[in-house]
Amino acid sequence: MGKAYLVGAGPGAPDLLTVRAAQILTRADMVFHDALVHPQTLALAARARKILVGKRSGRHSTAQSFINKRLVDAARKHGVVVRLKGGDPMLFGRAQEEIDALRKAGIDFEIVPGVTAATAASAELGVSLTRRGLARHVAFVTPRAGRGERRNDWAASVLAADTAVIYMGAGLAEGISAELVARGKAKATPLVLVESATLPERRILRGTLADLPTLALQAGGGPAVLLLGEVLRDAIADRAAVAIPEIQAYLRRA
Amino acid sequence: MGKAYLVGAGPGAPDLLTVRAAQILTRADMVFHDALVHPQTLALAARARKILVGKRSGRHSTAQSFINKRLVDAARKHGVVVRLKGGDPMLFGRAQEEIDALRKAGIDFEIVPGVTAATAASAELGVSLTRRGLARHVAFVTPRAGRGERRNDWAASVLAADTAVIYMGAGLAEGISAELVARGKAKATPLVLVESATLPERRILRGTLADLPTLALQAGGGPAVLLLGEVLRDAIADRAAVAIPEIQAYLRRA
Repeated sequence: MGKAYLVGAGPGAPDLLTVRAAQILTRADMVFHDALVHPQTLALAARARKILVGKRSGRHSTAQSFINKRLVDAARKHGVVVRLKGGDPMLFGRAQEEIDALRKAGIDFEIVPGVTAATAASAELGVSLTRRGLARHVAFVTPRAGRGERRNDWAASVLAADTAVIYMGAGLAEGISAELVARGKAKATPLVLVESATLPERRILRGTLADLPTLALQAGGGPAVLLLGEVLRDAIADRAAVAIPEIQAYLRRA
Repeated sequence: MGKAYLVGAGPGAPDLLTVRAAQILTRADMVFHDALVHPQTLALAARARKILVGKRSGRHSTAQSFINKRLVDAARKHGVVVRLKGGDPMLFGRAQEEIDALRKAGIDFEIVPGVTAATAASAELGVSLTRRGLARHVAFVTPRAGRGERRNDWAASVLAADTAVIYMGAGLAEGISAELVARGKAKATPLVLVESATLPERRILRGTLADLPTLALQAGGGPAVLLLGEVLRDAIADRAAVAIPEIQAYLRRA
């Protein structure tokens, strides 16, 4: 019997992998990886068979139950099997379904945490998510839910928190902005969209909650987080400088 | 002029440092570090002068304004100056005060994100903080506030979130439990206290929100996070097995 590792690949840049994750990858016999894991990270698993199973908006993806089954089967046959996920496995990674399948099958497993997109984006902006005297709690939410999922009141969590980070929200910009404003969040709340954090192609789009739909039109198709809250007040101060190209791009697309 | 790096040392274990952080440490001329950074992590900065500036409950600590000043002075004199913080610098790390001081002084700086205690504790438990159909939003809060700080309604954030992680809360267990129960959180909400996550001396104490004061008595003085929410239901199922030693320890201390 082998062992399965659920490993966080970090936010994007290959050197934001942990040392432990890098060491496990070099020993891996088989790696099941998400679509957005960096090629240099995968290259660490030099002798492993690599299988893409990740989901990505609008593209073909492997069903979760099939991933669970393949992971269990592989761990039965191989020594070191890695399930490599973007960011941290325990935040929006559907890790629990894989953990439950491994437990049920009696397979030894270990989870290796990673740097999540929220703090990577915060680092790139130079804006701490918490700030003495201003922000002492942070919500990590996603407005996305699976079919038939129970009520997901992500907005309540955003409204209660000093700072909010919204994962997988760029494609739902209109709805997010409308919902939060309808429930009393100020339109002028500072908001920054960070796409492809820590990668050379990253984009940082600055504005307010009211600007979110326009900012989202500016974004490309990379993974993005939305950061929202008063801690970002200074970070959006230069948005006037980017307003004209934003409007031009909007007009081109409209 | 040198450059300052605000670096996350990760949750405890030295191999949960990022590759980037490790590389910067090996080049460091000077390292200002928190009290709880692992000696093996510090040892990577082989040629650096190392200065302890971190805070720890109940011990002498360096005033933040003095840390800011020393960081700026050092970056003016040295090549590579590192401010090494436990976990991720942008969550509960008072990074903004240091960033503002560096910006004001015109010093080049970079922030290197790290693995935060919440996801490390979650990895150790094998319980994802989010779970399809059950938990789609997570609050990271601390009930601690500085003198004269504005209203910090950490409890509102905990109440709104599916899963909550409370940082620096073990010493305030009575108040946390009382406040949340008074505001309608079920006493039976599953709760796990994880102390010294990822280190050999870690302790995992399982119970419910009502048990929190008793669990906290069991904890040692290490850094701890409290995880709270329905995702932990299975993880507390074996608490009966630990109830007797817990009660014995409680009686010994009472």
